[in-house]
Amino acid sequence: MFNEVYDVIVVGGGHAGSEAAAAAANMGSKTLLITMNLQNIAQMSCNPAMGGIAKGQIVREIDALGGYSGIVSDTSAIQFKMLNKSKGPAMWSPRVQSDRMRFAEDWRLMLEGTPNLDFYQEMVSGLIVENHKVVGVKTSLGIEVRAKSVVLTNGTFLNGLIHIGDKNFGGGRAGERAATGITEQLVNLGFESGRMKTGTPPRVDGRSLDFSKMVEQPGDEHPEKFSYLDTTQPLKEQRSCHMTHTSELVHDLLREGFDRSPMFNGRIQSVGPRYCPSIEDKINRFADKNSHQLFVEPEGWKTCEYYINGFSTSLPEDVQFKALRSVVGFENVKFFRPGYAIEYDYFPPTQLKHTLETKLVEGLYFAGQINGTTGYEEAASQGLMAGINASLKVQEKDAFTLQRDEAYIGVLIDDLITKGTEEPYRMFTSRAEYRTLLRQDNADFRLTPKGYDLGLASEKRLKRMEEKQSKSDAFVQFFRETSVTPDEANPILESKKSAPVKQQDKMFKLYARPNITIDDVRQFESVEQYIQANNLDTEVIEQTEIQVKYAGYIEKEKNNADKLNRLENLKIPAGFDYSKLKSMSIEARQKLTKIQPVTISQASRISGVNPNDISVLLVYLGR
Amino acid sequence: MFNEVYDVIVVGGGHAGSEAAAAAANMGSKTLLITMNLQNIAQMSCNPAMGGIAKGQIVREIDALGGYSGIVSDTSAIQFKMLNKSKGPAMWSPRVQSDRMRFAEDWRLMLEGTPNLDFYQEMVSGLIVENHKVVGVKTSLGIEVRAKSVVLTNGTFLNGLIHIGDKNFGGGRAGERAATGITEQLVNLGFESGRMKTGTPPRVDGRSLDFSKMVEQPGDEHPEKFSYLDTTQPLKEQRSCHMTHTSELVHDLLREGFDRSPMFNGRIQSVGPRYCPSIEDKINRFADKNSHQLFVEPEGWKTCEYYINGFSTSLPEDVQFKALRSVVGFENVKFFRPGYAIEYDYFPPTQLKHTLETKLVEGLYFAGQINGTTGYEEAASQGLMAGINASLKVQEKDAFTLQRDEAYIGVLIDDLITKGTEEPYRMFTSRAEYRTLLRQDNADFRLTPKGYDLGLASEKRLKRMEEKQSKSDAFVQFFRETSVTPDEANPILESKKSAPVKQQDKMFKLYARPNITIDDVRQFESVEQYIQANNLDTEVIEQTEIQVKYAGYIEKEKNNADKLNRLENLKIPAGFDYSKLKSMSIEARQKLTKIQPVTISQASRISGVNPNDISVLLVYLGR
Ligand SMILES: Cc1cc2nc3c(=O)[nH]c(=O)nc-3n(C[C@H](O)[C@H](O)[C@H](O)COP(=O)(O)OP(=O)(O)OC[C@H]3O[C@@H](n4cnc5c(N)ncnc54)[C@H](O)[C@@H]3O)c2cc1C
Ligand SMILES: Cc1cc2nc3c(=O)[nH]c(=O)nc-3n(C[C@H](O)[C@H](O)[C@H](O)COP(=O)(O)OP(=O)(O)OC[C@H]3O[C@@H](n4cnc5c(N)ncnc54)[C@H](O)[C@@H]3O)c2cc1C
Repeated sequence: MFNEVYDVIVVGGGHAGSEAAAAAANMGSKTLLITMNLQNIAQMSCNPAMGGIAKGQIVREIDALGGYSGIVSDTSAIQFKMLNKSKGPAMWSPRVQSDRMRFAEDWRLMLEGTPNLDFYQEMVSGLIVENHKVVGVKTSLGIEVRAKSVVLTNGTFLNGLIHIGDKNFGGGRAGERAATGITEQLVNLGFESGRMKTGTPPRVDGRSLDFSKMVEQPGDEHPEKFSYLDTTQPLKEQRSCHMTHTSELVHDLLREGFDRSPMFNGRIQSVGPRYCPSIEDKINRFADKNSHQLFVEPEGWKTCEYYINGFSTSLPEDVQFKALRSVVGFENVKFFRPGYAIEYDYFPPTQLKHTLETKLVEGLYFAGQINGTTGYEEAASQGLMAGINASLKVQEKDAFTLQRDEAYIGVLIDDLITKGTEEPYRMFTSRAEYRTLLRQDNADFRLTPKGYDLGLASEKRLKRMEEKQSKSDAFVQFFRETSVTPDEANPILESKKSAPVKQQDKMFKLYARPNITIDDVRQFESVEQYIQANNLDTEVIEQTEIQVKYAGYIEKEKNNADKLNRLENLKIPAGFDYSKLKSMSIEARQKLTKIQPVTISQASRISGVNPNDISVLLVYLGR
Repeated sequence: MFNEVYDVIVVGGGHAGSEAAAAAANMGSKTLLITMNLQNIAQMSCNPAMGGIAKGQIVREIDALGGYSGIVSDTSAIQFKMLNKSKGPAMWSPRVQSDRMRFAEDWRLMLEGTPNLDFYQEMVSGLIVENHKVVGVKTSLGIEVRAKSVVLTNGTFLNGLIHIGDKNFGGGRAGERAATGITEQLVNLGFESGRMKTGTPPRVDGRSLDFSKMVEQPGDEHPEKFSYLDTTQPLKEQRSCHMTHTSELVHDLLREGFDRSPMFNGRIQSVGPRYCPSIEDKINRFADKNSHQLFVEPEGWKTCEYYINGFSTSLPEDVQFKALRSVVGFENVKFFRPGYAIEYDYFPPTQLKHTLETKLVEGLYFAGQINGTTGYEEAASQGLMAGINASLKVQEKDAFTLQRDEAYIGVLIDDLITKGTEEPYRMFTSRAEYRTLLRQDNADFRLTPKGYDLGLASEKRLKRMEEKQSKSDAFVQFFRETSVTPDEANPILESKKSAPVKQQDKMFKLYARPNITIDDVRQFESVEQYIQANNLDTEVIEQTEIQVKYAGYIEKEKNNADKLNRLENLKIPAGFDYSKLKSMSIEARQKLTKIQPVTISQASRISGVNPNDISVLLVYLGR
């Protein structure tokens, strides 16, 4: 039925698969997206939200490179918040509540509007592999489709098993069936596979809730947005979330079901996401806490369905129900569906190269939850990178990877393939050594030129970024060059209880003071004039402020990163034989042999490889 | 988990279930809709269209009674056509192309906005029956929900088996799983079940089609709409369909797969819809026809997915593909998914009363495809009637049924429960004896007063109908009373080549002439003045025209219907023992015992019961 040989086949239309398909097609590869149900493209399996701490940065990075997640997050948003705004800009993290149906529909329409991209609805049941090289896929109907590369993004569907209390049944997500065949084949091909689990809270009927007893959580007064493009607009209206909390009574009611919990009675063996624990997990681990916050999140603009963030659970549904009814505001709650846990197969990501290509089978890429990660953003960014690299490989071009000081995406992939993960991997700002460099405000500076070179980011995108950069650079320069006299400065400084100056000084120095803001310096006539004359928008002004106020930190991190990058340039020859390094610890030799790091720097990040081992390696390599 | 005893539980959120749930809830019953996936409410399993010949009339009837299908069809329409406009008004049939996603979403939001209606997502695996009375349902998780009545609307999901070529697998619809457990239990309870099949064509990528080679099929120039309410508006913009056709070559290519066709090699035994035949069926049955029309229908406003109306098939996917590629305009077609056939369980509807309650289990209602029908409209209207009657029964009120001269819905249900059906039942105008009475323009006159009395149609709806009625009655009266002279009339008559009059005559008589239209009579000053003075809209004017032009036919059919209704009033005592009527044919006695008709009239419609048998019965009953 498929005559043509595709450049890239993407299996699975979740967050990873959608980005992979878009990237490959936009880079000119003939691409086919095969997914089990074309009506569920980029379905949000769990909470209706994109972004958040460290994840918001990732969405901005995807957007900067020319991916779609940022645009769709904007068009489907019902609420915007910049988290951590009171902290330094490295911590600022954009987050939206999404309209779940709009999100999926907008994604689908974006993909339909992408040239070079074909669609096919079916389950892929196996790969066609010849001479350790993937050459296509087989579907459950027995159809064979040939391709030069394949990206697997099966999410939670591989042998998915859903648990609620002591019941369990096959499924990839509530109401959807599991996918079978692929794991078994990959294991036969020599891959190692494992099992992970994740969970989701009940969905409830908002008409049954008493919001007057909860605390309203409105969006930002001046909402921003994800995409650096001007094709999307900040929200004019927003929907609020609400906050409530559990209590000792709720916890007691939940405990009554612990003996029937698949988590506690041993039925679920696999590891769940430490940082999205179920409510039973929280009660168990933090036994002294007598209350946990719950966020009541609307699922869309008009629907009355709500998501109970913080109440993920796989306890028996009657226990979930009884306990939730004791939460303030939930006295009369009605369920749309109970929470559940799901176990699924994943493949330890140390089996991958930095490009997300598998080491074992050429042309085969893995992206998303299949790599042991959790979260839409983590999945989407891997999809993007896999789609890019599959495309580059087919076009016989150099691979594209990101360093740890260039992007959270770089940190994510390097962590995965170097350290692997024993539990669902989620991104945090703390995982990035250089998080002052990896800010949400400068993802375009960091990545848009690269995206443009790849043929992924549009020229329009590049031009917008260049304009923002030149304007903010010039404005910083203005502050560096312009002086103010004590007469001009002191009234303003005093009004902010900042020490007065004794002599003329550069504006930069004053502006750099912690409690002096743009509103203060705008009181200098020359600043206001400059802004007007150069027609500076909020984005440029904010960028300038960050450059002025954090110049020191940024500089320092850049230097550190540069040092690391020198190590990063110390390449280890492919297929290096570690067994001959007898003075290296056995563990290090095994790990290094397994991971096959590409650089000394990567080698040093492998757990179990210590500085001593690195010295041995350096000596051997003649450094 | 469910403490409360519901008045009505509706199982299945397809077209039947959605109407049933809305009706019951709007009539004040505490209602619960349980369905396998709340994201697929009122999913269009097959073509993205509502209405059509006889079906359009049903949608208008549903709307007139206060159901939702008409409103949703309007809000989600992308094209409107009044079919058969060149024929008499009994044949006029409204039809829309729908935006599939919008249709489902609008339905869901309408239901969410309905008070008294709760939602729950899960599979119902069985009923709770006590003393031949249904008292609730059991779900696959083992949850029990209690209710005073249950409406089953499982559609094509009961033990659904999907066929493509020589492959088959369980499923209720592409990408969705089948439902199990219910059939087995009902059979144990004494129900008879059967197997039917239906099919669907491939969905294709519009970007791969060459529309310039096809014939454009635009919507009506002046689109109308379904709902009698003014809350929906006629379309201002529309999307076109396109027409193309098969050829001998296409047929030959299809024939190559016949030996692998589940229809022809005996793998599918069950009967499919005679009037929606698969393409292989058409080729087989009409071997002399060397071309069949295909309609290429967009699936929504923005999507590039297209539905190939007329190409329903369960041939192997490679055969489908090869053949479709030979259709003009499809030379480069790409598939989103192949066509398939599905077999499913149904319950011969002779096991039901006119209320759609089962005869065997009190409080249990069946509606939709489970009764052996096909089509969204047939399903929706049954759902509405089942929802109404379940509600009335719980409220201990009289049942609500419609006679054959009152509504297509009456014809549909009477046919089903009296005659049963050996193949998927589809409505046609020819099934209605009194189709001149059952027009799309007067469903409100026929049914809105009834809907209002039920508490289903709003007062606003009733008022609109009453105004339309009084205005059109008065306008008809005006034509009856107003005379025109030959001098006034003849120029107009001559211009239409209609015989001149010799003396003054009532306008009614002239207007009643076949080729004289409203535009002609508007040339009489008094008519135009009347229209302006009374502010008559198109709907009233059209209604008047029908009343004037078809007065004779309408009168005649009314008389016939009245005669029948007298028979209809001859009731047969419940539980009547036919075995004692030895002079009646054995077949008639068996059929009558099985169907247990309520009236002599219904008895006379049972196949196998002949006039002789009716005479015997009449004599016995002392008539
Ligand atoms: C119950 C549940 C709870 C979760 N809770 C959280 C949470 O609390 N926090 C969090 O951060 N993340 C959570 N997640 C994870 C989050 O949903 C995923 O990380 C994210 O969706 C992964 O994206 P993906 O693209 O890798 O896979 P998915 O979004 O799972 O998409 C996979 C896609 O591939 C398709 N597919 C799979 N196999 C095949 C095949 N063989 N052939 C064709 N198509 C196939 C599927 O139909 C699906 O469209 C949860 C997920 C689930 C299911
Ligand atoms: C492949 C295919 C082709 C078709 N072709 C045509 C055609 O050519 N012409 C035509 O007129 N009609 C056609 N139809 C029929 C048309 O789709 C149906 O007549 C119509 O959808 C029936 O409506 P329904 O409400 O009875 O059932 P459905 O629309 O099938 O809805 C049933 C609903 O019930 C739910 N459900 C089922 N069992 C359970 C359970 N145990 N627990 C909870 N929920 C449950 C399902 O999830 C679904 O939401 C076709 C249908 C299919 C599937």
